[in-house]
Amino acid sequence: MIRLKFSIELNYSVSQPDADFIFSIHAAQTAHQSVVSEMLVINQPLLQSLYTDPTTHTRFLRIKANTGPLRVHYAATVDLHHYSEQPEKLGELPVAELPGYVLPFLYPSRYCQSDRLVRLAIKEFGHLWRGYSRVQAIRDWVLNRVTFQPNSSNSNTTAVDTLVEEVGVCRDFAHLMIALCRAVNIPARFATGIDYGASPILGPTDFHAYVEVYLDGRWYIFDASGVAIPMGFLRFGTGRDAADAAFATIFGDVQGSAPVIQIEAVPNQQGLLVVPQHVPYALSTDGP
Amino acid sequence: MIRLKFSIELNYSVSQPDADFIFSIHAAQTAHQSVVSEMLVINQPLLQSLYTDPTTHTRFLRIKANTGPLRVHYAATVDLHHYSEQPEKLGELPVAELPGYVLPFLYPSRYCQSDRLVRLAIKEFGHLWRGYSRVQAIRDWVLNRVTFQPNSSNSNTTAVDTLVEEVGVCRDFAHLMIALCRAVNIPARFATGIDYGASPILGPTDFHAYVEVYLDGRWYIFDASGVAIPMGFLRFGTGRDAADAAFATIFGDVQGSAPVIQIEAVPNQQGLLVVPQHVPYALSTDGP
Amino acid sequence: MIRLKFSIELNYSVSQPDADFIFSIHAAQTAHQSVVSEMLVINQPLLQSLYTDPTTHTRFLRIKANTGPLRVHYAATVDLHHYSEQPEKLGELPVAELPGYVLPFLYPSRYCQSDRLVRLAIKEFGHLWRGYSRVQAIRDWVLNRVTFQPNSSNSNTTAVDTLVEEVGVCRDFAHLMIALCRAVNIPARFATGIDYGASPILGPTDFHAYVEVYLDGRWYIFDASGVAIPMGFLRFGTGRDAADAAFATIFGDVQGSAPVIQIEAVPNQQGLLVVPQHVPYALSTDGP
Amino acid sequence: MIRLKFSIELNYSVSQPDADFIFSIHAAQTAHQSVVSEMLVINQPLLQSLYTDPTTHTRFLRIKANTGPLRVHYAATVDLHHYSEQPEKLGELPVAELPGYVLPFLYPSRYCQSDRLVRLAIKEFGHLWRGYSRVQAIRDWVLNRVTFQPNSSNSNTTAVDTLVEEVGVCRDFAHLMIALCRAVNIPARFATGIDYGASPILGPTDFHAYVEVYLDGRWYIFDASGVAIPMGFLRFGTGRDAADAAFATIFGDVQGSAPVIQIEAVPNQQGLLVVPQHVPYALSTDGP
Repeated sequence: MIRLKFSIELNYSVSQPDADFIFSIHAAQTAHQSVVSEMLVINQPLLQSLYTDPTTHTRFLRIKANTGPLRVHYAATVDLHHYSEQPEKLGELPVAELPGYVLPFLYPSRYCQSDRLVRLAIKEFGHLWRGYSRVQAIRDWVLNRVTFQPNSSNSNTTAVDTLVEEVGVCRDFAHLMIALCRAVNIPARFATGIDYGASPILGPTDFHAYVEVYLDGRWYIFDASGVAIPMGFLRFGTGRDAADAAFATIFGDVQGSAPVIQIEAVPNQQGLLVVPQHVPYALSTDGP
Repeated sequence: MIRLKFSIELNYSVSQPDADFIFSIHAAQTAHQSVVSEMLVINQPLLQSLYTDPTTHTRFLRIKANTGPLRVHYAATVDLHHYSEQPEKLGELPVAELPGYVLPFLYPSRYCQSDRLVRLAIKEFGHLWRGYSRVQAIRDWVLNRVTFQPNSSNSNTTAVDTLVEEVGVCRDFAHLMIALCRAVNIPARFATGIDYGASPILGPTDFHAYVEVYLDGRWYIFDASGVAIPMGFLRFGTGRDAADAAFATIFGDVQGSAPVIQIEAVPNQQGLLVVPQHVPYALSTDGP
Repeated sequence: MIRLKFSIELNYSVSQPDADFIFSIHAAQTAHQSVVSEMLVINQPLLQSLYTDPTTHTRFLRIKANTGPLRVHYAATVDLHHYSEQPEKLGELPVAELPGYVLPFLYPSRYCQSDRLVRLAIKEFGHLWRGYSRVQAIRDWVLNRVTFQPNSSNSNTTAVDTLVEEVGVCRDFAHLMIALCRAVNIPARFATGIDYGASPILGPTDFHAYVEVYLDGRWYIFDASGVAIPMGFLRFGTGRDAADAAFATIFGDVQGSAPVIQIEAVPNQQGLLVVPQHVPYALSTDGP
Repeated sequence: MIRLKFSIELNYSVSQPDADFIFSIHAAQTAHQSVVSEMLVINQPLLQSLYTDPTTHTRFLRIKANTGPLRVHYAATVDLHHYSEQPEKLGELPVAELPGYVLPFLYPSRYCQSDRLVRLAIKEFGHLWRGYSRVQAIRDWVLNRVTFQPNSSNSNTTAVDTLVEEVGVCRDFAHLMIALCRAVNIPARFATGIDYGASPILGPTDFHAYVEVYLDGRWYIFDASGVAIPMGFLRFGTGRDAADAAFATIFGDVQGSAPVIQIEAVPNQQGLLVVPQHVPYALSTDGP
């Protein structure tokens, strides 16, 4: 069991009264990700509303801020005790056997226009064994084609753009991988959080976007951009794509500065310091 | 109370074993739309799976068809006893006061890229009173700009395309209206069904797409394309946009022919024949 | 030398006075394509203006039509005496050595967004020998990826759309091939005309779109869609893409019906009947 | 007569042997813009090729640079003796009466998808008198809708994007205005150069993009973004859109820094210092 301790600080300058914010910066509480302790401090005395989506477990914090500086500080200690499985045991489920709540993750979404990629996806992946290894093949295909380059995309960049321009950041890798999975009828969703283990490519710990794919009755983690260690992903939000799971959605005239994020592995309940590492298993933090 | 009796017949030729279908052709059962009786007949002996989405009430019928002809016949009698309200009483709710399950309908989706229309929407509608009349202004703006023209769009056409090209069918009007609502933080969703009352523009009864907007705690009906009578809308599915609520989503090599649809108003429980008509109230078929 | 005799009949119904038309249906007169005889008959008594572009040799016929039926009949006999070269002798010219009038064909255009494909094109073709065989590799790549399917695209479809959706007609194959050539700095242009030799895929003779690429000082013919015999291409217009070289550009309220086209090979000046065939040489109908 | 003296310095770091550059930084020599003196200094000993397009007068400087720093310095003194006309005398020419070389400026191009805007343009501008004032109405429409905001667009941004997102820089204003003109059959082209008279919005003198529209036999200047003084525009390149007339098109691995530009009005041949100002006439620097 891995225990991670982290904090996030977000700073904004609010120019307009009653600017609305929706944050997804709370660690999700799932069958295999437990929040040991958490703390939220906001510098303005505000009514806070916290909503937990029953199917994704994403927690949405809503506030209406006053004019002036807004500082949101969240810190938590979280236990990750992954569900793991042999990849070769994980087959895809036929559409007719998927749980109903999984269906939306088969459909195209704002940034993942899977409907436009059906021909391409069938040609490239249609003949493969229907299971974990096919998803892995999709992920490898994306990784081989797309070059990771900071600041190469913007909030309007979609999976189709990334397919064409072959450059992006973690969010773009995730969108393209999701679109290709859905194009061959594999439910896939977008996840955000932070990851333990700064990479030479990603630089210091930052928000990270990755992919969860539904196989054999459970959502499994994939790192589309190949820059991080999946075992170290601490999930905040998950949804159809970045539109659903942004760490902050802001309604109003607001200036923001870069988030300040810190994370460390700490000794777990048994007093052991377990550090995320690459493993040959399929990993999930969701229940069945 | 309006009682409508209708039937739908869908015919396909399935060229591939195990083609998956997801249909949304069941009448939704809501606080104000009750299914008096219904019948589903499929010409192939198949396992059928019916899933009802708990928040939208959309019913998803999934089947895995065999090679050969597939005929799906659905017929129902449905009572519409609309919730109605004075438009001037219906204000918008601040983001922070929306029920959590409504939040996804604030975000951009496959066909409704509201994120790209924020500047335009604020300029056109930002100064208006925040309530039903603002939504009506958005609907009128769309109606004034876009020309209804059969076969002028395709399954790839988005709200942005419709804004630029100013032509479309009911689905396109709905997408553009939804995108503009979300761009000014009003939750809006796409609804499909059939409508009583064939119009000279729409021709014989067909599937119809319209809009539901969340105001003052309830989803209200708007006919973005202005060609039909909202009181006669019988809802099947509702979702973020046409990707969620297609009457049929098909996975596999399948040819289809045009649906055959019939609808009539019949005497209600009190023996009265009530026919849908234009009314000056806001109408809803959803509960609070 | 091949002698081809053909006729084109275009029929329109003009609903508006003074509708403007620009036609490119005259056979181009080039160093290696000579018009032996030609005839133009228009059913309305109109002023006709014929402009020949000095660099592309495209002839633009402009007329202002009256309300009512408009019939344009053009017939010609044309000699094709191709310039041919061994492919392995044809290298690319460095940008600095291209004739100035060729430069526009390096830049992106309406349907050929080469600027977006630079990364992809360099990865796929950047390492190849710079000459005819590289262009052939681009053409084969397009042909392997894209499926020919009538009515699968529309007048808004671009090279990027075709790359993503992998389906199209001859025009779409040409646009994608052109965009990829330009993305690695090879001048490429769009050509239209008709082709001798109906194929099982294309059906009866119709307008055809193909590609000309500038190599070693001359424009060479490539058939991006691989459905026709390049030696049988009789060129009308050439330009950056379909926007420049449409057989008809119409300004006004006009209905058209399908063109009627006939073509046959006839005995040439020496009395020999030479029929277009596939050859292992590079072919050009342009001068140096 | 206005005499302007200016200099441009471009600095690059070339990482790859034989990187090709195409520059359009020479002042165009037209009927009403004369180059009194000019000087080009390049820090590498290179073969330079200068091509002047016969219809647009744009001069294209091509060089093949060596690895290492590249410094291109161009300075010139230029006389502007504008052709001016009363706006109300300038009518549009029918398509059939346009000179042939003007036709390409009627067609859609990479960044100006006029074909998609026909319906919108006809609705907004179709009923207006066909001449200068209609073009002015198009320019005002664009200016009213689009907000000038530095860094709000990128090299992929098109007229359609600007129409939708309503934000951009001078290049984007120009593209949208051009697309709308072409959509109602008015030939329009993109021009680049520098402008005398730094504005509070534009900051220090920089490259500027503006529009030239063909009316009554001549190309007239319009400032789509409304931030500068048209009389002070010193033209370098003109073409269908930014793809044709970029001040630098680079083929290869090259890093650049911001251009350094200086401009001043100096006494003219008669010893008079004439400074550009807003005037109520239509202005042109082109001959008939």
